[in-house]
Amino acid sequence: MNLARVSGTVVSTRKEQSMEGLKFLILQQVNLEGKDDGGFVVAADSVGAGIGEYVLYASGSSARQTLATDKRPCDAVVMAIVDNWEVNGNLKYKKGVDD
Amino acid sequence: MNLARVSGTVVSTRKEQSMEGLKFLILQQVNLEGKDDGGFVVAADSVGAGIGEYVLYASGSSARQTLATDKRPCDAVVMAIVDNWEVNGNLKYKKGVDD
Amino acid sequence: MNLARVSGTVVSTRKEQSMEGLKFLILQQVNLEGKDDGGFVVAADSVGAGIGEYVLYASGSSARQTLATDKRPCDAVVMAIVDNWEVNGNLKYKKGVDD
Amino acid sequence: MNLARVSGTVVSTRKEQSMEGLKFLILQQVNLEGKDDGGFVVAADSVGAGIGEYVLYASGSSARQTLATDKRPCDAVVMAIVDNWEVNGNLKYKKGVDD
Amino acid sequence: MNLARVSGTVVSTRKEQSMEGLKFLILQQVNLEGKDDGGFVVAADSVGAGIGEYVLYASGSSARQTLATDKRPCDAVVMAIVDNWEVNGNLKYKKGVDD
Repeated sequence: MNLARVSGTVVSTRKEQSMEGLKFLILQQVNLEGKDDGGFVVAADSVGAGIGEYVLYASGSSARQTLATDKRPCDAVVMAIVDNWEVNGNLKYKKGVDD
Repeated sequence: MNLARVSGTVVSTRKEQSMEGLKFLILQQVNLEGKDDGGFVVAADSVGAGIGEYVLYASGSSARQTLATDKRPCDAVVMAIVDNWEVNGNLKYKKGVDD
Repeated sequence: MNLARVSGTVVSTRKEQSMEGLKFLILQQVNLEGKDDGGFVVAADSVGAGIGEYVLYASGSSARQTLATDKRPCDAVVMAIVDNWEVNGNLKYKKGVDD
Repeated sequence: MNLARVSGTVVSTRKEQSMEGLKFLILQQVNLEGKDDGGFVVAADSVGAGIGEYVLYASGSSARQTLATDKRPCDAVVMAIVDNWEVNGNLKYKKGVDD
Repeated sequence: MNLARVSGTVVSTRKEQSMEGLKFLILQQVNLEGKDDGGFVVAADSVGAGIGEYVLYASGSSARQTLATDKRPCDAVVMAIVDNWEVNGNLKYKKGVDD
């Protein structure tokens, strides 16, 4: 999985029928300090993530292993909202403190 | 999924039989400002996207989860035409306004 | 899919049994001007592509969706020989003219 | 598979239901000298790996081929803890000696 | 598939049960001149490849399409030992001559 911050949304009216009802989130990939690293991806949401939240997303066929995305042409899904992470014993991010 | 702009087409007469009838679109990958970022991919079309439109495409096995691409040697599919997107509360693109 | 030019072949006698009879082509990835971009991949052939031809290839599990590659440890397949492509209304390559 | 060092953990309360009970490890990708190469990924754990250990992880659909990750939206899994590796006949890392 | 040279091995005692008996090879990715290009991957072996040999490996779900790797958390497999390759009509490598 990859670590990212939800920064926006994409709206589409004309899309593959099976994608109806899915929300498309813009995810900015972040480094272990929580800063944008320049890359981004558009992912479906399976957990109700909001703008500004740090999340984990899964790519490829694994992105279809949720009720929301099963058998759909979807290659990235937010599957967890991050509470905190630590590296080498140091807390790098804690939800509500660093936001 | 990734954000791209449809910029062209590829024509092929001699191809895997199952690819008959599929349209191959050239997609230029764009950044969140809607500008080309240098990369491109060739994708099948499942939504009737036209030159100049901004789209989302799915890659890998997820590209086969449409009626048009099921069980075909196709690893990228346009599955949504983009109406608009916004980042950090700012509208970055709106169809018909920025085209 | 990705655009490439067939530039060579790889010969292997000792290989996974299921790969017997498959031809391995060296594909040089090209940009939209048809020039080598530095990357290359080795792909199985499902369409009878020859040295110098421009082709499309599919990667990942999609590379197994041909009769020639089904259920084989093959992650790239040439699935179309390109006749021509155009970008923003300009013909960039036409078979027989630019070869 | 890729070689990495376990450097941290990610905690998530709100996640896809099927991810309950999985531990998320932060893996720093390393070069053949065992030094961080700058990249990282978040992986589920199937072998009880601890902070500081060198591991192998598998990505994509292969990450779901463990009891812990089967049918889950998980695209990276630690599937081996490394004892040692050697390159061109030289021992590059041996557990307990270089840690 | 990608072209690589076998340069080493990784040893792991504690691993996913289904990986028992698989040999992990360190593969250095090479360019079309047969020189290391800086990247490497760890792959399972399905053909008995030895140190110094040039090989082809398959990635992703295709890496599980061998008897040795079927249904295992393995995302790269050596599926062919290379005898020779040529580019634009020039022999670039021939086993036993250039080794």
